[in-house]
Amino acid sequence: MSALTRDVKIVVIGAGAMGSGIAQVAARAGHTVYLYDGRSEAIAAGRAAIEKDLKFLVAKNRLDGAEATATLERVVPVAALAEAADAGLAIEAIVENLDVKRKLFAELESLLGADAIIASNTSSLSINAMAAGLARPGRLAGLHFFNPAPRMALVEVVSGLTTDREVAETLYATARAWGKVPVHAASTPGFIVNRVARPYYAEALRVLAEHEAEPATLDAILREGCGFAMGPFELMDLIGHDVNFAVTKSVFEAYFCDRRFAPSPFQQELVAAGRLGRKSGRGIYEYGELAAKAVPQDEAPQDGEPRVTVVGDIGAAAPLLARLEAAGIEVRRESGMHGKRGWMQIGAARVALTDGRTATLRAAEERQPNLVLFDLCLDYSTSTRIALTRADQCGLGALRVVTGTFQKAGFKVSVIDDVAGLIALRTVAMLANEAADAVLQRVASARDVDTAMRHGTNYPKGGPLAWADQLGAGFVVEVLANLQEHYGEERYRVSPLLRRKACNGEAMYD
Amino acid sequence: MSALTRDVKIVVIGAGAMGSGIAQVAARAGHTVYLYDGRSEAIAAGRAAIEKDLKFLVAKNRLDGAEATATLERVVPVAALAEAADAGLAIEAIVENLDVKRKLFAELESLLGADAIIASNTSSLSINAMAAGLARPGRLAGLHFFNPAPRMALVEVVSGLTTDREVAETLYATARAWGKVPVHAASTPGFIVNRVARPYYAEALRVLAEHEAEPATLDAILREGCGFAMGPFELMDLIGHDVNFAVTKSVFEAYFCDRRFAPSPFQQELVAAGRLGRKSGRGIYEYGELAAKAVPQDEAPQDGEPRVTVVGDIGAAAPLLARLEAAGIEVRRESGMHGKRGWMQIGAARVALTDGRTATLRAAEERQPNLVLFDLCLDYSTSTRIALTRADQCGLGALRVVTGTFQKAGFKVSVIDDVAGLIALRTVAMLANEAADAVLQRVASARDVDTAMRHGTNYPKGGPLAWADQLGAGFVVEVLANLQEHYGEERYRVSPLLRRKACNGEAMYD
Amino acid sequence: MSALTRDVKIVVIGAGAMGSGIAQVAARAGHTVYLYDGRSEAIAAGRAAIEKDLKFLVAKNRLDGAEATATLERVVPVAALAEAADAGLAIEAIVENLDVKRKLFAELESLLGADAIIASNTSSLSINAMAAGLARPGRLAGLHFFNPAPRMALVEVVSGLTTDREVAETLYATARAWGKVPVHAASTPGFIVNRVARPYYAEALRVLAEHEAEPATLDAILREGCGFAMGPFELMDLIGHDVNFAVTKSVFEAYFCDRRFAPSPFQQELVAAGRLGRKSGRGIYEYGELAAKAVPQDEAPQDGEPRVTVVGDIGAAAPLLARLEAAGIEVRRESGMHGKRGWMQIGAARVALTDGRTATLRAAEERQPNLVLFDLCLDYSTSTRIALTRADQCGLGALRVVTGTFQKAGFKVSVIDDVAGLIALRTVAMLANEAADAVLQRVASARDVDTAMRHGTNYPKGGPLAWADQLGAGFVVEVLANLQEHYGEERYRVSPLLRRKACNGEAMYD
Repeated sequence: MSALTRDVKIVVIGAGAMGSGIAQVAARAGHTVYLYDGRSEAIAAGRAAIEKDLKFLVAKNRLDGAEATATLERVVPVAALAEAADAGLAIEAIVENLDVKRKLFAELESLLGADAIIASNTSSLSINAMAAGLARPGRLAGLHFFNPAPRMALVEVVSGLTTDREVAETLYATARAWGKVPVHAASTPGFIVNRVARPYYAEALRVLAEHEAEPATLDAILREGCGFAMGPFELMDLIGHDVNFAVTKSVFEAYFCDRRFAPSPFQQELVAAGRLGRKSGRGIYEYGELAAKAVPQDEAPQDGEPRVTVVGDIGAAAPLLARLEAAGIEVRRESGMHGKRGWMQIGAARVALTDGRTATLRAAEERQPNLVLFDLCLDYSTSTRIALTRADQCGLGALRVVTGTFQKAGFKVSVIDDVAGLIALRTVAMLANEAADAVLQRVASARDVDTAMRHGTNYPKGGPLAWADQLGAGFVVEVLANLQEHYGEERYRVSPLLRRKACNGEAMYD
Repeated sequence: MSALTRDVKIVVIGAGAMGSGIAQVAARAGHTVYLYDGRSEAIAAGRAAIEKDLKFLVAKNRLDGAEATATLERVVPVAALAEAADAGLAIEAIVENLDVKRKLFAELESLLGADAIIASNTSSLSINAMAAGLARPGRLAGLHFFNPAPRMALVEVVSGLTTDREVAETLYATARAWGKVPVHAASTPGFIVNRVARPYYAEALRVLAEHEAEPATLDAILREGCGFAMGPFELMDLIGHDVNFAVTKSVFEAYFCDRRFAPSPFQQELVAAGRLGRKSGRGIYEYGELAAKAVPQDEAPQDGEPRVTVVGDIGAAAPLLARLEAAGIEVRRESGMHGKRGWMQIGAARVALTDGRTATLRAAEERQPNLVLFDLCLDYSTSTRIALTRADQCGLGALRVVTGTFQKAGFKVSVIDDVAGLIALRTVAMLANEAADAVLQRVASARDVDTAMRHGTNYPKGGPLAWADQLGAGFVVEVLANLQEHYGEERYRVSPLLRRKACNGEAMYD
Repeated sequence: MSALTRDVKIVVIGAGAMGSGIAQVAARAGHTVYLYDGRSEAIAAGRAAIEKDLKFLVAKNRLDGAEATATLERVVPVAALAEAADAGLAIEAIVENLDVKRKLFAELESLLGADAIIASNTSSLSINAMAAGLARPGRLAGLHFFNPAPRMALVEVVSGLTTDREVAETLYATARAWGKVPVHAASTPGFIVNRVARPYYAEALRVLAEHEAEPATLDAILREGCGFAMGPFELMDLIGHDVNFAVTKSVFEAYFCDRRFAPSPFQQELVAAGRLGRKSGRGIYEYGELAAKAVPQDEAPQDGEPRVTVVGDIGAAAPLLARLEAAGIEVRRESGMHGKRGWMQIGAARVALTDGRTATLRAAEERQPNLVLFDLCLDYSTSTRIALTRADQCGLGALRVVTGTFQKAGFKVSVIDDVAGLIALRTVAMLANEAADAVLQRVASARDVDTAMRHGTNYPKGGPLAWADQLGAGFVVEVLANLQEHYGEERYRVSPLLRRKACNGEAMYD
């Protein structure tokens, strides 16, 4: 299916931040764009916002002045929808209210040609509910841009049960022609990004609720250790807790209170307290000139060991060994037990990658009191921070030597309390789990889920499913099963698809 | 307790489909029936509907003309409730609104004699809530007919906490005297049928959500393989998704969001999309003259094996062996491992009844890559369709030979994706599970639960508990426990009563 | 931080039962207390209630007449809040409505000095939500008295996210100076008491829903066997099911429908039926002169054994042995299997403390048909009642001998059906579990949780955490894990903190 040609006129309804951003994208791609808003004063404001942004781009040498002028000229304010009757595509970015949207769609349907496409920029409403009652429900689809639309590459093309395949394909090709990265998604609560990203916030909030670490430490581990652009707490403070809590609640309720999506009571308290984040001057963190900057917990420099013994295969952490050697630490290799995950002996401590069990439980089960666990890193060769924890049975001295050895290899070390799955591994495992369920339920293909998470949230490593493939589905399943055993909650249930991959040895991308 | 005698007059309040149907039943049994409705035009319409149905029965030679006339004459329209003051039994079939019903009951109580019985045909409201505030709460009970009342045999006699035992027994005897099949039920959400039937829809919707098979295939397996009168999808299309979703949600909410009763998001989307089923021309299936009829997946004819080796006891599937032999297939019997379920070797494939695990997991656990699982049949001697699945590790060739062998024995074969517990066994196990919980919580006796399901939903095999007894509680528990392990959801938790029966060796009917 | 001195004036807003009780406490401690109420007639009524109670105390010789007069004189009715402008502490005990309270706090803030403390007696609203919008949110805290305030010692001092530490400490010291037992709590749903007490009702309601025993029997076991002041059913009847159900639902909803807090459908039916408890003449039990008193099930006297053989260590039940010996029963001791819990052989029966499994399951697993389980007692040396159950595989004769032996040792014996964890042990384990989660989430310290439960609900044994320490975290975890296995519900999930203590061997008080 090919993209809409440049001569097809577009009408954007709603001239707020999203609507004017979308209009800018379409105009920049060469379309005449009618800009309409029920509040007439909003139309001029929307067009002014476009002008401002185009000027900014010109000033930054990211846009040619003539092209900016031509783009702006293609944005045509219309005082009445009737003036846009010759549009071939309508994109709606008005208030998230089903009844209001339905009324608009009925009006558009009677106004536009029979082959026009009607697209909704909704982030939370059902395309199926919107399509009900339309004469041509097949011509309606979701076209979900992310804010700010001119900068964010991702566009979710959302099909309802009755959306014509051709309509979805045309929107997909058009979004691509506009320089966007489109993905196909089925109309389900949260579509791709707003669903699959839930655990990124939820796991951090859970660990915080158990007081195993401070927000700044958790943020730093995920950012510096795992390559996320922002930690979950600073990100929530940026998004606004009111907004983030509303999305969480909306997905939770749409899935009939599935525990997987249950909000954290703490989120609700933040909202109740008016601590909404940056915009209110205080959220998880305090902002403003007088606020002290929260700093992550960093271990003071310790003495490390000159020698590490590796027993068996330490899996995803294997690149760590070369890094230790490069730092002048001698690495001796011993063969491990068949079928058992490997570990390192560093001084008195047995040191292993967390597998979703607490160190204290594992120390008891494996009868190894001096057990120290480390967290997942994006790349053990280069990541600058790592989280450690010790079993309650493990001496502080044993931990210090491990800390020193990691420091010698160039890591900042954050020691957190003994939380199951630490923070990075449990977060990544739960993101992969949610992504796998989305694939199982055919919300989107594995490739599209990863693409959406990469471009919609800036996740590292090619997306959560690519990451799961690298870790191995079997290991991810083990981590999740241990978390479920630990918490006894169905929130941590393993996606049947991940479980299947762990049994059949296939990759998520197969 | 004996039935109300024929000289006791009845008043039916509400002359819609249910009310007029109930009036017809009572009049046919010889009672004078006052028919009342707040909307006076509805009274005549209700009586006309009775007349039409009686004429239909006469035309079909199922009713004598004189009896029809006499029946109709016994239906006496009343313009005011006061005209029915000498009734000994009031049956209410008005709108499902607690406040409206309460007001009606108060009026009836002041109007009728102190020993009159007041019965509600509610399908969803609490008898306890209705009885609160009455002067004689002991005289109120539920009397839940199914639609259409003159045809459907089942009547649930519903007792609240304060309902006099004598009132419930009188209603039970009266319903039986009217030619109905009554059961006793405690006032709990959904009573018997609307609660125990939930999994019939829910399991099919879950399998559909995972895209393991098409609706027409699942319907055909349950109908032709398992003896259900209608498959769950065609049945939902008949009931209407709006109605079925409303019942699901009502039971779910009444049990405080117990996961066991969680609706499927897909149901909600169907309702939102206006795809309500037959009545809207489209639901799961499309209707109307132009709609293509959905056909179940049928395997093309394959070559089978001339010989099957049976190892151990294949339990419920044992009658299959005689059928194979009757089809000219040689069956060799070998003794199996003590305490292990048996299986068949057909060509390269190990073939077994599903036990709630996926074939892929079981193949990995049992180190048998060429594993093919088959589904539960109502009667392996005579059922005309069977579902098969193969492990991801199993070659297609191995599956084909199994398919051919079943075909040789007269089965149509539907191959579906590797879903845990396939469709028939998981559905039957979950129905038995819900039925067992209803017995445990004393909603009704085992016998009454089965009676209700047989007459209220036309379930085969004497009802889900009789079926569980035949399969053995131990096997049903194993299937459910495997499903819970697979999904990690409390939806699949085993009823404590089933678990107990599996331990003590008693039957559900004991 | 020191208490407010006596010269600090207090204003109490709301002159209902709670408000006037609080005013009485503060006046008795020497403060001038302004009493205000929006309904002016309530002020006089409140002061009259104080006068009546003071006179009652004088009559009972628990208060000096002059002191009573002085106390009453210190209660100063005010017709307008403005008259209380010089108060240093405002305590609000008005209607539980967030908006109404917020309006009051804003008024108080503008009226009182900048260093005044504003305290809310709320039992269910969020301090964070109340503080939002205040100019000095740090000066607001919860000060949750229990009814009747002059008698109940416990006061929960509740801090929101922004409450100044100094404010909370001042309130804590002041409550102590007033003769109360204060605890610190974080603003979370139900604070300490209304959260941790949930299982006391919930477990009894669950057992009742499965019809394993009658309410009077369950009440008697918990009262006479376990030292609770009142059984859960008589206590709910006293509190009122409307009130108790409302608290349950409020905590359930605030935790986003966490299964741990799910109400029982039976509670809802009681409320719907208007069976609210004592105040309506009927709840679980019937009241009034004509009502028959419900009596617990007591086994008729049986013949016991002259001799008991103890194999291994019977843990918490060890004091039972001396009691048997004191009753003239010979106790032989044999060593048991290492790491296995011990048991007693009494006649044909193996007799053991329940571990959360049903007797029927355990009999099957341990291949010991004649298995009899007994329940937890507060003190096996002195408790006057004990609950027994037998496996379905166990003969009645075997049970009778066990019954007779316990009777010989002075126990009343209640035989209940084979319910997992019986009633006392499962209740105590779940109370400890909830208490542990409250500590994990830093709602309060272990010591404050136990203090609150002891003084807010009169729980025996120093509180649920002290009891868990005595039973051993490992045993409590085992019981809960068996309950979760039995029910398959996350309601019975083990608190991560309890699990940790079971692994590291520390006590809850460490």
